[in-house]
Amino acid sequence: MSKRRSRNRPSRPAGGILAQPFKQPQNNWSPYHILSPQQLNDLHEASMNILENIGVDFMDEEALDIWEAAGAKIDRSTEHVWIDRGLVAQALETAPSQFTWRARNPAHNVVIGGNSLTFAPCGGMVYASDLDRGRRPGMLEDYENLLKLTHVCPLLHFGPWEQVTAHDVPVSLRHLVRLSRGIELTDKVLSEAAHGRIITADNLEMSRIVFGDDAINPPNGETPDPVMGDVINVNSPLRFDDRMLGGLITYARAGQITFITPFILAGANSPVTMAAAFAQQNAEALAGVVLTQLVRPGAPVIYGGFTTNTDLKSGSPSFGTPEGAWALLVGGQMAQHYGLPYRGSGGLTNAPVVDAQSAYESNWNMWPCVLAHTHLMMHSVGWMESGLTASFEKFVIDAENLAMFAKFLEGFEVNKESLALDMIAEVGPGGHHFGTPHTQARYRDAFYQSELADRDRFDNWEIAGSEDTTVRANKIWKKWLKAYEKPPLDVAIKEELDAFVARRTKELENINLYD
Amino acid sequence: MSKRRSRNRPSRPAGGILAQPFKQPQNNWSPYHILSPQQLNDLHEASMNILENIGVDFMDEEALDIWEAAGAKIDRSTEHVWIDRGLVAQALETAPSQFTWRARNPAHNVVIGGNSLTFAPCGGMVYASDLDRGRRPGMLEDYENLLKLTHVCPLLHFGPWEQVTAHDVPVSLRHLVRLSRGIELTDKVLSEAAHGRIITADNLEMSRIVFGDDAINPPNGETPDPVMGDVINVNSPLRFDDRMLGGLITYARAGQITFITPFILAGANSPVTMAAAFAQQNAEALAGVVLTQLVRPGAPVIYGGFTTNTDLKSGSPSFGTPEGAWALLVGGQMAQHYGLPYRGSGGLTNAPVVDAQSAYESNWNMWPCVLAHTHLMMHSVGWMESGLTASFEKFVIDAENLAMFAKFLEGFEVNKESLALDMIAEVGPGGHHFGTPHTQARYRDAFYQSELADRDRFDNWEIAGSEDTTVRANKIWKKWLKAYEKPPLDVAIKEELDAFVARRTKELENINLYD
Repeated sequence: MSKRRSRNRPSRPAGGILAQPFKQPQNNWSPYHILSPQQLNDLHEASMNILENIGVDFMDEEALDIWEAAGAKIDRSTEHVWIDRGLVAQALETAPSQFTWRARNPAHNVVIGGNSLTFAPCGGMVYASDLDRGRRPGMLEDYENLLKLTHVCPLLHFGPWEQVTAHDVPVSLRHLVRLSRGIELTDKVLSEAAHGRIITADNLEMSRIVFGDDAINPPNGETPDPVMGDVINVNSPLRFDDRMLGGLITYARAGQITFITPFILAGANSPVTMAAAFAQQNAEALAGVVLTQLVRPGAPVIYGGFTTNTDLKSGSPSFGTPEGAWALLVGGQMAQHYGLPYRGSGGLTNAPVVDAQSAYESNWNMWPCVLAHTHLMMHSVGWMESGLTASFEKFVIDAENLAMFAKFLEGFEVNKESLALDMIAEVGPGGHHFGTPHTQARYRDAFYQSELADRDRFDNWEIAGSEDTTVRANKIWKKWLKAYEKPPLDVAIKEELDAFVARRTKELENINLYD
Repeated sequence: MSKRRSRNRPSRPAGGILAQPFKQPQNNWSPYHILSPQQLNDLHEASMNILENIGVDFMDEEALDIWEAAGAKIDRSTEHVWIDRGLVAQALETAPSQFTWRARNPAHNVVIGGNSLTFAPCGGMVYASDLDRGRRPGMLEDYENLLKLTHVCPLLHFGPWEQVTAHDVPVSLRHLVRLSRGIELTDKVLSEAAHGRIITADNLEMSRIVFGDDAINPPNGETPDPVMGDVINVNSPLRFDDRMLGGLITYARAGQITFITPFILAGANSPVTMAAAFAQQNAEALAGVVLTQLVRPGAPVIYGGFTTNTDLKSGSPSFGTPEGAWALLVGGQMAQHYGLPYRGSGGLTNAPVVDAQSAYESNWNMWPCVLAHTHLMMHSVGWMESGLTASFEKFVIDAENLAMFAKFLEGFEVNKESLALDMIAEVGPGGHHFGTPHTQARYRDAFYQSELADRDRFDNWEIAGSEDTTVRANKIWKKWLKAYEKPPLDVAIKEELDAFVARRTKELENINLYD
């Protein structure tokens, strides 16, 4: 049959990434485990040993009070706490293994835990960069543009957080501006700095305005779905500072989400051997988890990791390395062992420019993240230059990879229809399937279709201007920005938010909250 | 203690990739399986159905004779064979699950099977490309340079095969030139075209000159370690042509290696549904495997796959896709199920230029290859532009990724020394580990150290010339070429080879072996 059929090349389906639905990929295959049961047990025992015998600094009076009340041995003069494994076991009983993070648009709620995967954009970047304007200190315009891209890109499940620093906004007002602009420009889930008690209280108040009184500070024992969250970094080794503890306590008390994330650089703030780095990471992450549960049993908390190795040439962190891949996998396996949701990082790279290194190093984080059954993949798009720069072009290239992972995790059906033995028989040896009814009925949605990748003939590519991936990505983010539409926001909420921000701006504009 | 210790940045260790030892990575973690037992069984049954009821074309008289003698139902007029599952089961009993591929330097022998991983360079490329000279038809000089790079790069376990076409050598003499130059320029394992009966006979004769009479055509029942091998492509769907069958029969009869590799493009030469593509790939690969075992029970044979999807925009193959990743994983799982060594492909990409796309698409093959427990990863370095172009810069970038996988698969030790609880205690909270005795004793070999990646500060990178990864790779392959030294070759062997090539050149120079 096929031999008589003329070749009928299907035309390209419309769409690209923006045409995809907003949904969370489901990771239904088994996680990839690299720790043997013995190794897992040895790491667990080592971290219990660290918590019980070496201990952790908590540089905050209220945190020390909480530990003391829980029966932990503390030393106020050194702000040091020794944490018994009984406290760890008790915390693991109350910490939820899964929860729903509510967005102001319920269609954009995300599940943290189970087999669900959540992709978040880059955060904490100092510079913005694109092909047109080069690398420059980030401004409010850059933050807003990255936020708009985050909103339109259906692969991203996360709305506002500090995609890039807005240097043109006074330091003490940045959280107000970021979060209020974020609430207005996107209706995806909210994340904003868990820094100290003042900023977090403002963030919670803005969340209350959007989500209502019941969402914030519910009575103990009740655990409504959270609406706000952020990273709590450990000052590794073995130290939580007052800024992070203020944030942790304020968010946990309000029933909101903390992602406890040691930033361990083997050879710098942990021993040079990776086993030690993993044991220390585990001890630090669990210490933070326990504190959240002492503050509020049942508070949603995510076990995080950000462990990699030192670059022996520059002395700085190396990203996208074999050691970093181990760390992502080990962190995931430990978190699963404890029944906690897991946070990793997707698009990390040292590359100073969007090129092959930036792409392969990002893959060296994304693959282990997916394999580890990471629930919250932070820094999935746009993260460049060791975390200093948010690149608009890399945003698109990374999003392309997220779309590929989403397709990858969908898997494929094996059934009578998809096995299509009748078509294999009908076409027979040496034939082709271009024009068969089976192909014609399915080709439009059969495969993941990339908008970014160039798969054309070399001469066609040359004639079209020899554009490399970065140049093509530059065109795509501009197209995405044009496609952006502001989501509707209730007028009363908007007015209340604006009034709050105006009041707090007056109160905070002459204060440096980061002093 | 640490707080008093001054920061002591370790200097960069010497070396880079060329300083690494030649060894095969050992894949000791479990393979990543995406097929459920039911799906695996359904694919197996579908492929048995294809072999038994639809059948396969074998366009070669001798092949038809062999099938007929084995009791298969054949139709000579259509060159068609129906293969009973009993023949498959019988072949799987005699096909080895593991064998050693001998190199003329025994230090370069490779194990195919078990947990061992073998990396091979790109092959079958038409153009050569580098930053200095651009893209041009490959010449003998390019072939020799790629061969020298293959020899010096310790991550590559494979010596000569057609890294690039030598257009300045007459077609009928190319195998003679390639293999004789290959034997002289490298002492790694030999691969040369399994094309028809004349070329393969020449290849075997040259192998005999190097390895002695016993290595080639051993008596039936004996299975010395093989010394020669190559790909057998299936003319999918369901057809083996006479050129491939001549190669398969000649190599298998001599006890040498064939890698049976269907090239399936879902939607073109298989149904558009991936389950059908996998079932068809499995049927085709097994058909070739069975034939090798009918020719010579115990002949070393590798189950191969090269399945991906059609690009719906260009109608050409898409490389580095989610569907291609499934295919690599499914192929590996099926091969393991049958106890056969598995061949995948590592560095595939459609990208016309060395950039982000070329890097992430290659990772989208390399990761699934490693996860699938691929034994022979072909096209691991240098493969560009849908297989048309061998890129010298991509050779280096891909080799960097292979080195990272080699380090990744080494894993890490979890023991008292590597957990280093005493050092964690001694340094304590807030300290650092730069100058501790534990770090000082280990930092030189602690981490994989990249020669290619740039991890410096942005301003340092700019001052040094803003070189992207491709420019840096350009410098590295030139350094590698300079480091190349020809391995010693026995003078008598060299003379015998030269005499053979001279005689065959006269005999073949006016014949077109590919007519």
